[in-house]
Amino acid sequence: MDITAVAALDDRVLGPEHKGFPQEAWGQTVRDFLASGPSLDRMSTPLLTVEQAAMESNVAVMAEWARSSGVGLAPHGKTTMAPQIWSRQLDAGAWGITLATPWQVQLARSFGVVRIMLANAIIDPVALAWLAAELNANPSFEFFSWADSVQTVELMDSALASTPNGRPVNVLVELGGPHGRTGARTVESAVAVAEAIHRSARLTLAGVGGYEGALSHDREPAGLSALKTYLDRMRELHLQIAADGLYGADAIVTAGGSAYQDVVAEHLAPLAAESGTSVVVRSGAYVIHDDGFYAGISPLIPGRVERPLRSAMHGWARTVSRPEPELALLDAGKRDLPFDEGMPVPQRVSGTRTLGKSEVTALNDQHAFLRMPGGTADDVPVGTVVRLGLSHPCTAFDKWRLIPVVDDADAANPRIVELIHTFF
Amino acid sequence: MDITAVAALDDRVLGPEHKGFPQEAWGQTVRDFLASGPSLDRMSTPLLTVEQAAMESNVAVMAEWARSSGVGLAPHGKTTMAPQIWSRQLDAGAWGITLATPWQVQLARSFGVVRIMLANAIIDPVALAWLAAELNANPSFEFFSWADSVQTVELMDSALASTPNGRPVNVLVELGGPHGRTGARTVESAVAVAEAIHRSARLTLAGVGGYEGALSHDREPAGLSALKTYLDRMRELHLQIAADGLYGADAIVTAGGSAYQDVVAEHLAPLAAESGTSVVVRSGAYVIHDDGFYAGISPLIPGRVERPLRSAMHGWARTVSRPEPELALLDAGKRDLPFDEGMPVPQRVSGTRTLGKSEVTALNDQHAFLRMPGGTADDVPVGTVVRLGLSHPCTAFDKWRLIPVVDDADAANPRIVELIHTFF
Repeated sequence: MDITAVAALDDRVLGPEHKGFPQEAWGQTVRDFLASGPSLDRMSTPLLTVEQAAMESNVAVMAEWARSSGVGLAPHGKTTMAPQIWSRQLDAGAWGITLATPWQVQLARSFGVVRIMLANAIIDPVALAWLAAELNANPSFEFFSWADSVQTVELMDSALASTPNGRPVNVLVELGGPHGRTGARTVESAVAVAEAIHRSARLTLAGVGGYEGALSHDREPAGLSALKTYLDRMRELHLQIAADGLYGADAIVTAGGSAYQDVVAEHLAPLAAESGTSVVVRSGAYVIHDDGFYAGISPLIPGRVERPLRSAMHGWARTVSRPEPELALLDAGKRDLPFDEGMPVPQRVSGTRTLGKSEVTALNDQHAFLRMPGGTADDVPVGTVVRLGLSHPCTAFDKWRLIPVVDDADAANPRIVELIHTFF
Repeated sequence: MDITAVAALDDRVLGPEHKGFPQEAWGQTVRDFLASGPSLDRMSTPLLTVEQAAMESNVAVMAEWARSSGVGLAPHGKTTMAPQIWSRQLDAGAWGITLATPWQVQLARSFGVVRIMLANAIIDPVALAWLAAELNANPSFEFFSWADSVQTVELMDSALASTPNGRPVNVLVELGGPHGRTGARTVESAVAVAEAIHRSARLTLAGVGGYEGALSHDREPAGLSALKTYLDRMRELHLQIAADGLYGADAIVTAGGSAYQDVVAEHLAPLAAESGTSVVVRSGAYVIHDDGFYAGISPLIPGRVERPLRSAMHGWARTVSRPEPELALLDAGKRDLPFDEGMPVPQRVSGTRTLGKSEVTALNDQHAFLRMPGGTADDVPVGTVVRLGLSHPCTAFDKWRLIPVVDDADAANPRIVELIHTFF
């Protein structure tokens, strides 16, 4: 990565457009603000924080898991859209960064990410024109995209025909699963896509890609069985393409979100024994993890591994109203906290009070409804700051442009040690 | 407003951090980009656009509605968080801007909004310290906040005690409804809050506030009846406070989101006949309106008024995969389009094709699932751009930092005539 560009983020100037930052920080650079030794009580609520120790542990846990599983890791960068975090993932040995849209690729290139897997098709003519120019101007830039239909290949080929001759674009053929998301639905149709890529002078067939996460939403036998059938078909597709001699040079076989990367590695890692074949998983959520969906489904959680992932993100919200004994309204809503994979979970309250039985039952745009069955008017009084466990880092990060990183989210008054810029 | 600060937004420089903008725009100011006469096909997908004519019509329709209904309008600025739009609303005669959180107030002040209604409590000590300083430094700044408990008043009073003596803070007492959101649940407890505000030397009792939108989600008789009962109690509260001589000077009675402002005006507008009393509604969504929730519930829609509101927002997404005859995947997801009050609705496709029966059934982070019952592989082929109708402007705007305004969303290739900056 371009470490100068990443470091330059600390030169940006804070202002009223940064949600949660105090007036005295306005006009300061990020660097100067951090040098002032700020603590969390200087910020206003609502707030999202990242815990440094948990994030760094997650980076290390996943890097070690990939090494010991015999797979490369291309962390999905769309989770955080934060070059400062991508940089840590690459420093820990990641193969490259995965992204979901051409625009995300452009953003990553502006921070100098060298190897990018676009786990999607790129057929937008505006984006393809950019890609061709970027590849031509930067010989070190390694780019991979996906195609799941002959039509996709033809669209790419014809859009690239109008750009100056340059390096061919690496394309993986994408296999989908029944009732899945994108991806050719049969090995036969996927082979036809591979042949089309092979035929194009402007494209290079670079492997087989897929996403198993759309095929199950739990770890029950039925879901796991569907995953395994799907991964077997990915392997079959790869072996057939290799046998047909369609690959340009090396081949990549890639699957794996943050829910089933163990199943993916178990099924696909043996393919990497073949010279010229890499197996790459694309987990993204792991770096932040959560206290919700991923905390339940990840293979790297307590009871499944010795050194588990930990949620590195927390919401902080203040009671602004106690209109009923069993109801508190907090000052964080849909604009601040994720709600699509489960509601925030109250974890603790500021000060010496303890938090009784309570549950966030709904979010409005700017409010959370905290229900306390059997609660009294003394519980969580107006002014109390509640720390919330969150589910789904992807929809937490996209609500914040600048996220404070704290040293220890369990401290009475955590210290702010870094500010993470996001790009959404 | 500070029109210089608003105009200076056009001096900001475009770059890869602006989702959807083409490479040739990077390095240009907004002003120069607009001067180049860009059309929508220069942008990449996914995209959110605002239609200028619809937005300006909505501003005018609502301003006229407020005038003819005998109420003031303090548009809820949290919908758009866009000073360029607030400026239009104020130019059309709005009484002030409503906001939901102290941070939003700070942002609005940085663009010079003079009169602000914070439809919420302000008890965050960091925010209160800022507020006291801002009021003292700017004699023209008129600020109003809400309190719904004696404890809230005491917290405000004690936080303000540690700030230099200055102008008292205007506070409205908030009445809530049964099973509603914030707000004292009885007239009696609300009067106690009013008395506490009245007692504080640092606060001025400035009126009665409420939000009826939490009490119903439709226009069925049961919901409307609950609204009316609630509004009657707001009136009763106001009259009692006035009779008790607790108001500092003038009084404001305020309610009204974008769903029931007609019911609010009908019940509360007569109060404005009393000298020194203003009735203010706080609708926000109207300025963008939608093709979903508000299109169904607003009083200002076709059939209910002659000049109705129109949806000023559209999503644009491209087919990136056609893996099954009845399924297309579009390149817009939860990061791009609102999904909390109904899924996006396909409206038309680019080019000469027509769009058959189709429905967005789910969004992933970066994909939309478009189902076409009875569809064939020829429908919505890869590369097709689909225009989507959206529901809930509040959760559309907060996904975009810079939103193109087009002249005519129905044109074959709309012209981009303005770029709107949002602050979330």
